[in-house]
Amino acid sequence: MESSRYEQKKLASSRHYPSHSFAPSAPELPPESYGPHHQRQQETYSDNHHGSSPSYSYYGQHQQQPSYGQSGFPAGTHPDVVRAFQMVDRDRSGFIDENELQQALSSGYERFNIRTIRLLMFLFKNPHDSLRIGPREFAALWSCLGHWRAIFERFDRDRSGKIDLMELRDALYSLGYAIPPSVLQVLISKYDNGSGRKVELNFDSFVECGMIVKGLTEKFKEKDPRYTGSATLTYDSFMSIVIPFLVSYD
Amino acid sequence: MESSRYEQKKLASSRHYPSHSFAPSAPELPPESYGPHHQRQQETYSDNHHGSSPSYSYYGQHQQQPSYGQSGFPAGTHPDVVRAFQMVDRDRSGFIDENELQQALSSGYERFNIRTIRLLMFLFKNPHDSLRIGPREFAALWSCLGHWRAIFERFDRDRSGKIDLMELRDALYSLGYAIPPSVLQVLISKYDNGSGRKVELNFDSFVECGMIVKGLTEKFKEKDPRYTGSATLTYDSFMSIVIPFLVSYD
Repeated sequence: MESSRYEQKKLASSRHYPSHSFAPSAPELPPESYGPHHQRQQETYSDNHHGSSPSYSYYGQHQQQPSYGQSGFPAGTHPDVVRAFQMVDRDRSGFIDENELQQALSSGYERFNIRTIRLLMFLFKNPHDSLRIGPREFAALWSCLGHWRAIFERFDRDRSGKIDLMELRDALYSLGYAIPPSVLQVLISKYDNGSGRKVELNFDSFVECGMIVKGLTEKFKEKDPRYTGSATLTYDSFMSIVIPFLVSYD
Repeated sequence: MESSRYEQKKLASSRHYPSHSFAPSAPELPPESYGPHHQRQQETYSDNHHGSSPSYSYYGQHQQQPSYGQSGFPAGTHPDVVRAFQMVDRDRSGFIDENELQQALSSGYERFNIRTIRLLMFLFKNPHDSLRIGPREFAALWSCLGHWRAIFERFDRDRSGKIDLMELRDALYSLGYAIPPSVLQVLISKYDNGSGRKVELNFDSFVECGMIVKGLTEKFKEKDPRYTGSATLTYDSFMSIVIPFLVSYD
C-alpha cells in the first residue's frame, strides 16, 4: 500500500518534472569538486526497498566554461555578488573566511547558521585552501543558493516559508535524489525542538539538508560509476568519505 | 618507505599488545546496540592501501549477563555511579536527558562538550527513547568511559594530558581499529584552533574521535560479516548508516 502510493507519487512527480526538459538541475558544486570520472548527467537514485532496480532519469547539463576578470570573478558575475564579497574582504586578500562568508551571504540571502556556513565552505572550498574561499567559489556558491531558493519556493506550496518532510522529499526527488522518507525523517529530526510539533525547515536548514544529501550522493556515485544503485567500498574508502562530513559539523 | 615504517609500527604495536592476552578490548557499546548478527570477536581493520588483505587479531570477550536491582542499575554497580545518576534525576523518573547527562558525568569525569554528550546519547540510547537514557545505559556509558580513560592515560606517554595524531593512531590500533593517518588527520582537524600549532586532543575530544571511529566501524562490520575488509552497500543503506552520525552533531 505504502509502496504503491510511493510509486504513484513518483509517477506524478515525473509527470510534473519530465526528465528531458523542465527538470531543475541539481544545484551544482563548483567544477573542482568533481573527480576525474564525474559524468555530466543526472540520475535519480531511487529507494529500491522492494527490490526494483533504480530508475534513472538522464538529461544533459549544459555547462559554460567561465572566463575570469581582473577581480577574479567569472565574467558576467552580477555586481551585487562582487559587492557582497568585496564588502567583507576588507584586506583585499581575495579570500574570505567562514565568518566573512556568513556576513557576505546575508546581503542576498538570510543569515545562515555557522554550521550551514561550514558545510558550504567544505563543499565549495578551493582545493588549495580549506579555510577560505575566493571570488570564483563565492560566485558559484551564490548562484547555487539561488537555485536552492527557487526550489524552496516551488515546493513550499502553502507559502509558509517552511518545508515539511514530504515537501522536502518531493524537492529532493525533483533534483534526482530519491531518499527514503525514513532516512529523511532521521535527517530532519536534528531540527526537532522537542515541542512535539511537526518538524519544518526554514531556508537555512533546507540548504543544509539538501547539501548533505547532494554531497553524500556525489561521493557514493563516484564509487558506483555504472549507476547500479550499489557500490563496493573498502573500509578505508568508507571512512574517508564519511569523516569529512562529520568534520564540517564542528 | 612510508609503508614499511607503518608495517614496522604495526609489528611493534602487536608486540606490545598481543592479540590474545593484554590487548584492551574496545570499550563496549551496550548489548542492545548490536544487531542480531553481532559477533563477540575483535578484529583489526587494517588500512590495506597496498592491496594486502586486512589483518585480523581475534580474541574472545567475556561478557557477563548482568542482573538488575530495584534501582534499575545492574547488580554490583559502584555506588558513586548510582549517586551521580540519582543526583541529576530529580523527578525520579528513572531517565535523564542530555543536559542532565552532562552534569552527571562531570562528577566522575570532566565536563564534556555538549556535542560529545549528544554523540554518547546517540550511541548508548535506549532503543525505545532516543532523547533520554536510563540507569542501565548510564552504567554502561560510565564504565565505557573508564576504559577510554585508561587507554587515554596509557597512550598519553609524556603525561601532557593531551593525545596527538600518532598517539591517537596507536590508541585506536590497540583497540583493533587501523585507521590511515590521513583519515585521522582530517578527523582531528576539527579541533584545530587555527593557531598553527600541532593539534592535540584532551580526553573529551579523544572520546569523541574514538566513538566516531568505533561507531562507524561497527556499522561497516555489519555489512561485512565475513570480515573481508570491504562491503557492498546499496545507496539506501549507505545513507541510512551515515546520516544518523551527522544528526548527532546537531
